[in-house]
Amino acid sequence: MYFVKVFVTYKESVLDPQGEAVKGAVHRLGYDEIDEIRIGKYFEIKVAKSDRPVEEAIEEICDKLLANVNMETYRYEIVATEEV
Amino acid sequence: MYFVKVFVTYKESVLDPQGEAVKGAVHRLGYDEIDEIRIGKYFEIKVAKSDRPVEEAIEEICDKLLANVNMETYRYEIVATEEV
Repeated sequence: MYFVKVFVTYKESVLDPQGEAVKGAVHRLGYDEIDEIRIGKYFEIKVAKSDRPVEEAIEEICDKLLANVNMETYRYEIVATEEV
Repeated sequence: MYFVKVFVTYKESVLDPQGEAVKGAVHRLGYDEIDEIRIGKYFEIKVAKSDRPVEEAIEEICDKLLANVNMETYRYEIVATEEV
Protein backbone atom coordinates (compact mmCIF):
# COMPACT_ATOMS: atom_id res chain seq x y z
CA MET A 1 0.00 0.00 0.00
CA TYR A 2 1.33 3.39 -0.99
CA PHE A 3 0.15 6.80 0.09
CA VAL A 4 0.70 9.41 -2.61
CA LYS A 5 0.24 13.17 -2.43
CA VAL A 6 -0.30 14.95 -5.74
CA PHE A 7 -0.13 18.73 -6.17
CA VAL A 8 -1.56 20.28 -9.32
CA THR A 9 -0.79 23.95 -9.93
CA TYR A 10 -1.08 26.35 -12.79
CA LYS A 11 2.12 26.75 -14.77
CA GLU A 12 4.11 29.78 -13.69
CA SER A 13 3.24 31.56 -16.95
CA VAL A 14 -0.52 31.13 -16.46
CA LEU A 15 -2.46 33.81 -14.59
CA ASP A 16 -4.36 32.62 -11.51
CA PRO A 17 -7.38 34.93 -11.18
CA GLN A 18 -8.83 32.91 -8.29
CA GLY A 19 -5.59 33.37 -6.36
CA GLU A 20 -5.61 37.09 -7.16
CA ALA A 21 -9.17 37.36 -5.84
CA VAL A 22 -8.25 35.59 -2.61
CA LYS A 23 -5.22 37.86 -2.23
CA GLY A 24 -7.52 40.87 -2.54
CA ALA A 25 -9.78 39.46 0.18
CA VAL A 26 -6.78 38.80 2.42
CA HIS A 27 -5.59 42.39 1.98
CA ARG A 28 -9.05 43.71 2.85
CA LEU A 29 -8.80 41.70 6.09
CA GLY A 30 -5.62 43.63 6.88
CA TYR A 31 -2.91 41.10 6.02
CA ASP A 32 -0.83 43.38 3.85
CA GLU A 33 2.26 41.20 4.18
CA ILE A 34 0.74 38.62 1.81
CA ASP A 35 2.49 39.19 -1.53
CA GLU A 36 1.07 36.39 -3.64
CA ILE A 37 -1.41 33.53 -3.41
CA ARG A 38 -1.64 30.83 -6.03
CA ILE A 39 -4.30 28.15 -5.77
CA GLY A 40 -3.97 24.56 -6.83
CA LYS A 41 -5.50 21.17 -6.27
CA TYR A 42 -4.30 18.57 -3.83
CA PHE A 43 -5.01 14.85 -4.04
CA GLU A 44 -4.35 12.18 -1.41
CA ILE A 45 -4.31 8.80 -3.13
CA LYS A 46 -4.04 5.33 -1.63
CA VAL A 47 -2.62 2.80 -4.05
CA ALA A 48 -2.56 -0.95 -3.53
CA LYS A 49 0.45 -2.95 -4.64
CA SER A 50 0.12 -4.18 -8.22
CA ASP A 51 2.26 -5.33 -11.13
CA ARG A 52 2.42 -1.78 -12.43
CA PRO A 53 4.93 0.55 -10.72
CA VAL A 54 3.09 3.11 -8.60
CA GLU A 55 4.96 5.99 -10.31
CA GLU A 56 3.72 4.85 -13.71
CA ALA A 57 0.08 4.62 -12.58
CA ILE A 58 0.20 8.03 -10.86
CA GLU A 59 1.81 9.80 -13.82
CA GLU A 60 -0.69 8.32 -16.27
CA ILE A 61 -3.63 9.26 -14.03
CA CYS A 62 -2.30 12.81 -13.64
CA ASP A 63 -1.78 13.23 -17.38
CA LYS A 64 -5.18 11.79 -18.30
CA LEU A 65 -7.41 12.99 -15.51
CA LEU A 66 -6.10 15.09 -12.65
CA ALA A 67 -4.16 17.80 -14.47
CA ASN A 68 -4.81 19.78 -17.62
CA VAL A 69 -1.27 19.52 -18.91
CA ASN A 70 -1.71 22.48 -21.24
CA MET A 71 -2.16 24.89 -18.36
CA GLU A 72 -1.18 22.96 -15.28
CA THR A 73 1.80 21.14 -13.94
CA TYR A 74 1.92 18.51 -11.21
CA ARG A 75 4.27 17.10 -8.63
CA TYR A 76 3.81 14.05 -6.49
CA GLU A 77 5.34 12.53 -3.38
CA ILE A 78 5.09 8.89 -2.44
CA VAL A 79 4.85 9.48 1.26
CA ALA A 80 4.49 6.18 3.00
CA THR A 81 4.92 2.60 2.03
CA GLU A 82 3.38 0.05 4.33
CA GLU A 83 3.55 -3.67 3.90
CA VAL A 84 0.02 -5.00 4.47
CA MET B 1 10.16 36.66 2.59
CA TYR B 2 8.52 33.36 3.44
CA PHE B 3 7.08 30.76 1.12
CA VAL B 4 4.20 28.88 2.71
CA LYS B 5 2.33 25.83 1.42
CA VAL B 6 -1.17 25.31 2.81
CA PHE B 7 -3.15 22.09 2.39
CA VAL B 8 -6.88 22.16 3.08
CA THR B 9 -8.64 18.79 3.22
CA TYR B 10 -11.99 17.50 4.38
CA LYS B 11 -11.94 16.11 7.89
CA GLU B 12 -11.56 12.33 7.94
CA SER B 13 -15.20 11.97 9.05
CA VAL B 14 -16.57 13.98 6.12
CA LEU B 15 -17.48 12.19 2.90
CA ASP B 16 -15.68 13.40 -0.22
CA PRO B 17 -18.06 12.76 -3.12
CA GLN B 18 -15.78 14.53 -5.61
CA GLY B 19 -12.95 12.19 -4.65
CA GLU B 20 -15.28 9.19 -4.99
CA ALA B 21 -16.29 10.35 -8.47
CA VAL B 22 -12.67 10.71 -9.54
CA LYS B 23 -11.90 7.27 -8.13
CA GLY B 24 -14.73 5.85 -10.25
CA ALA B 25 -13.28 7.51 -13.35
CA VAL B 26 -9.82 6.16 -12.53
CA HIS B 27 -11.21 2.63 -12.19
CA ARG B 28 -12.98 2.95 -15.55
CA LEU B 29 -9.58 3.83 -17.05
CA GLY B 30 -8.29 0.51 -15.71
CA TYR B 31 -6.31 1.59 -12.64
CA ASP B 32 -7.89 -0.85 -10.21
CA GLU B 33 -5.03 -0.52 -7.74
CA ILE B 34 -6.30 2.91 -6.68
CA ASP B 35 -8.08 2.35 -3.36
CA GLU B 36 -9.00 5.87 -2.35
CA ILE B 37 -8.76 9.43 -3.65
CA ARG B 38 -9.48 12.44 -1.50
CA ILE B 39 -9.41 15.91 -2.97
CA GLY B 40 -8.33 19.06 -1.23
CA LYS B 41 -7.13 22.56 -1.95
CA TYR B 42 -3.55 23.67 -2.13
CA PHE B 43 -2.30 27.22 -1.67
CA GLU B 44 1.16 28.61 -2.33
CA ILE B 45 1.54 31.86 -0.42
CA LYS B 46 4.39 34.36 -0.45
CA VAL B 47 4.57 36.40 2.73
CA ALA B 48 6.74 39.46 3.27
CA LYS B 49 8.43 40.00 6.61
CA SER B 50 6.27 42.01 9.01
CA ASP B 51 5.84 42.64 12.73
CA ARG B 52 3.33 39.81 12.89
CA PRO B 53 4.73 36.26 13.05
CA VAL B 54 4.10 34.46 9.77
CA GLU B 55 2.48 31.50 11.60
CA GLU B 56 -0.07 33.82 13.21
CA ALA B 57 -1.01 35.47 9.90
CA ILE B 58 -1.32 32.14 8.08
CA GLU B 59 -3.45 30.52 10.80
CA GLU B 60 -5.80 33.50 10.95
CA ILE B 61 -6.15 33.60 7.16
CA CYS B 62 -6.86 29.85 7.05
CA ASP B 63 -9.47 30.09 9.81
CA LYS B 64 -11.19 33.11 8.30
CA LEU B 65 -10.92 32.51 4.60
CA LEU B 66 -9.17 29.47 3.17
CA ALA B 67 -10.76 26.65 5.17
CA ASN B 68 -14.29 25.97 6.34
CA VAL B 69 -13.25 24.81 9.79
CA ASN B 70 -16.55 23.00 10.34
CA MET B 71 -15.84 20.51 7.60
CA GLU B 72 -12.22 21.01 6.69
CA THR B 73 -8.86 20.87 8.35
CA TYR B 74 -5.62 22.45 7.23
CA ARG B 75 -1.90 21.98 7.53
CA TYR B 76 0.85 24.32 6.46
CA GLU B 77 4.58 24.20 5.85
CA ILE B 78 6.84 27.20 5.85
CA VAL B 79 9.10 25.98 3.12
CA ALA B 80 11.74 28.57 2.44
CA THR B 81 12.96 31.63 4.18
CA GLU B 82 15.01 34.05 2.13
CA GLU B 83 16.54 37.23 3.40
CA VAL B 84 15.80 39.91 0.81
